[in-house]
Amino acid sequence: MAILIDGKSLSKSFLAKIRQELGEFKANNANFQVGLAIVQVGDRADSNIYIRNKLRTAGDVGINAKHLKFNRSVNESILIDEINKLNSDPKIHGIIVQLPFDSENSIDSDLIVNTVSPNKDVDGLHYANAGKILHGQVDKAFVPCTPKGCLELIKSTGVDLKGKNAVVVGRSKLVGSPMANLLKLNDCTVTICHSKTVDLPTICRSADILVVGIGKPKFVKSDWVKPGAVVVDCGINSVQSGEKNKICGDVDFEDVSKMAKFITPVPGGVGPMTVTMLLQNTLESAKRYYMNYEVDAQWKCG
Amino acid sequence: MAILIDGKSLSKSFLAKIRQELGEFKANNANFQVGLAIVQVGDRADSNIYIRNKLRTAGDVGINAKHLKFNRSVNESILIDEINKLNSDPKIHGIIVQLPFDSENSIDSDLIVNTVSPNKDVDGLHYANAGKILHGQVDKAFVPCTPKGCLELIKSTGVDLKGKNAVVVGRSKLVGSPMANLLKLNDCTVTICHSKTVDLPTICRSADILVVGIGKPKFVKSDWVKPGAVVVDCGINSVQSGEKNKICGDVDFEDVSKMAKFITPVPGGVGPMTVTMLLQNTLESAKRYYMNYEVDAQWKCG
Ligand SMILES: NC(=O)C1=CN([C@@H]2O[C@H](COP(=O)(O)OP(=O)(O)OC[C@H]3O[C@@H](n4cnc5c(N)ncnc54)[C@H](OP(=O)(O)O)[C@@H]3O)[C@@H](O)[C@H]2O)C=CC1
Ligand SMILES: NC(=O)C1=CN([C@@H]2O[C@H](COP(=O)(O)OP(=O)(O)OC[C@H]3O[C@@H](n4cnc5c(N)ncnc54)[C@H](OP(=O)(O)O)[C@@H]3O)[C@@H](O)[C@H]2O)C=CC1
Repeated sequence: MAILIDGKSLSKSFLAKIRQELGEFKANNANFQVGLAIVQVGDRADSNIYIRNKLRTAGDVGINAKHLKFNRSVNESILIDEINKLNSDPKIHGIIVQLPFDSENSIDSDLIVNTVSPNKDVDGLHYANAGKILHGQVDKAFVPCTPKGCLELIKSTGVDLKGKNAVVVGRSKLVGSPMANLLKLNDCTVTICHSKTVDLPTICRSADILVVGIGKPKFVKSDWVKPGAVVVDCGINSVQSGEKNKICGDVDFEDVSKMAKFITPVPGGVGPMTVTMLLQNTLESAKRYYMNYEVDAQWKCG
Repeated sequence: MAILIDGKSLSKSFLAKIRQELGEFKANNANFQVGLAIVQVGDRADSNIYIRNKLRTAGDVGINAKHLKFNRSVNESILIDEINKLNSDPKIHGIIVQLPFDSENSIDSDLIVNTVSPNKDVDGLHYANAGKILHGQVDKAFVPCTPKGCLELIKSTGVDLKGKNAVVVGRSKLVGSPMANLLKLNDCTVTICHSKTVDLPTICRSADILVVGIGKPKFVKSDWVKPGAVVVDCGINSVQSGEKNKICGDVDFEDVSKMAKFITPVPGGVGPMTVTMLLQNTLESAKRYYMNYEVDAQWKCG
C-alpha cells in the first residue's frame, strides 16, 4: 500500500515556520508587518467559504488580512481604482482577487488580475509572473499556490526529481501549465496531457511523478499508474454519497493506493497546501519589500 | 525518403504576404507605415551579420527598420532612456534588442529586454508576452520568432496536430519552452526534454512531431525517430568540413531523412522563418496599434 503524503501535516509545519519567521522579523523591527488584501465582488457562497478560510489562516500566522467585499453593482473602473490604491499601499504586500466574480456588470477578470502589481500578485496570476515561470526565474516570481503546494508535497517524499518522468494531466493556467513548468525547472522530463490526449492511460503509466488536475471524480485508476510512482491529486469534486455530498479527487484513491508508492489524499492533500502557499508567497513578498526599501522610512509612512 | 519542409520557400511566401498586406494598408491610408528598431551594443561580428539580414529583409517588405548601434562604453541607464524613447515613438511598432551584448559595462539583459514595451516586443521576450503564452493568450501576445516559425513549418505539412505526441528537445526560454507551450495550445500532448532527460532516444521515438533545439551537431539519429514523424531542426552549428566551416543542424539530416516523413533542412529550414516571423510580428504590432488608436491623429504627430 502507498505511503500517504499528508498535506494537512505538511501544511501545519509550513504554517509554523511562517509564523516563526514573521515573529522573528517583528522582533528585529518594530515596524515590520505583513498585509494581505482579498478582493471579492458579490457574494458567492463558495467564495465566502474560501475567503473565510484564508482570513482565519492568515490571522493564525500573524498576517494582517483585509477583506474588500464589493457588492454586485461595482464596475470595472471602480475596481481598478481600488486595486491601484492597494498597489501603492505600503502596508499591503499581497493582493488576491477572488474568482469568479459575482457581478451585475461585465468585468474583464484578466484585466483586473493584471491590474494587481506583479510585486504583490501572491496568487501568481499576473502575466509577468507567469512569464518569469516560463523563463525559469522562479525566485523573482510568485508561483501559483496550487502547483507550488504540489511541488512541496512531491519534495516531501524525498524522491530525487532529476531525470524523472513526470506526467501532468490538465493544462490550465492555474494548475496544469505552471505545474509542468515547475517540474521541468526541477529537471524532470515532463509530459503535459489534456482532453485531446490520445491513450492517456499509457502515457500516465510512464510517469514516475503523476500530477492530476482535471476536475473528474476518481478518473485515474490503478492500471494507469506505474508501480512505485508518486501520485498527486489536485482534484476537488463534490459527489453524492448516500444522502450527503462528499469531496473526492480526480484519482481513484483506494484503487491507486495499491500501485503508487506515495499518494496524496483528497481531502487533506493538495487543498491545505494551497492556502499555506498563499501565505508563504505573502511573507515572501513582504521580505522582498523589506530587502529592497529603506524599511524604517517606508513602513512608518503607511 | 522524407519530404523536405522548405523553409526558404515558405518564408518567401510569408514575406510576399507581408509585403502585400502592408501595401494594402498604405494604399488605404497615406500615413500608415511600419517601423522596427534594432538596438545593438558593441560590434560582435555575428550580431552584425544577423542585423544586416534583418534590415535588408525588413526593407524588402516595406518596413522601416532603424539600427541603433551603441558603442561598448554605453551603460544601462542610457540604454533604458533610449528604449523608453522608442517605446513612446509612434513611428516605431517593433523594438528588438540584439543579444548578447558586447559591452564594457555590466548590463542586465533581462532588465533591458523587459524595458521594451510588451506592445512593441516583437521578439516575444518580455515576461508579459511569455506569460500570455503560458496562459494560452497567443492572440494578445508576441510569440518568439523561432518557435513561431517552427509551428508554421509544421502546419505547412498539413499534418493535423490534435492529439499528436510532440517531443521538444531543449527547454530554453527562447526556443524549447515556448515551443512546447505552442504545441500544447495546438492540442498536442507535449513532452519537454533537456540535458537531464534519461533515455532520450526512447522518448524521441514516441514523437509524431519532434522539434530539436539543443546546439549539438547531428545529435539526433534515425533510430531515435518514429517512422512517419515530422522532424523540425532548430540547430545552427558551425562545423569544420575540410578547410571550410559548414552549418549543420542538431539532427543528422542524411540519416533521419530515411525515417521521417517530413524534415526541415539546415540551412534552409527554421533559419529563414525566424527573420520572417520577426517581420510578421512587427506588422501585427502595427495593425494592433492601427486598430486601437485614431490613426490619423496619431500617425501624423510622429
Ligand atoms: N486544491 C486546490 O486548492 C485547487 C484545486 N483545483 C481543482 O483541480 C482541478 C482542475 O482545476 P483547473 O485546472 O482549474 O480546471 P480547468 O477546468 O481549468 O482545467 C481542467 C483541465 O483538465 C483537462 N481535462 C478535462 N477532462 C479531461 C480528460 N478526460 N482527460 C484529460 N484531461 C482532461 C482539460 O483539458 P482541456 O484543456 O483540453 O479542456 C483542462 O486542461 C479541479 O478539480 C479543481 O477543483 C483547482 C484549483 C485549486
Ligand atoms: N534558427 C534560429 O533562428 C535559431 C536557432 N537557434 C539554435 O537552436 C539551438 C538551441 O538554441 P537555444 O535554445 O537558444 O540554446 P540554449 O543553449 O539556451 O539551450 C539548449 C537546450 O538544449 C538542452 N540540451 C543541451 N544538450 C543536450 C543533450 N545532450 N540532450 C538533451 N538536451 C540537451 C539544454 O538542456 P539544459 O537546460 O539541461 O542545459 C537546453 O535546454 C542552437 O543550435 C541555436 O543555435 C537558436 C535561436 C534561433
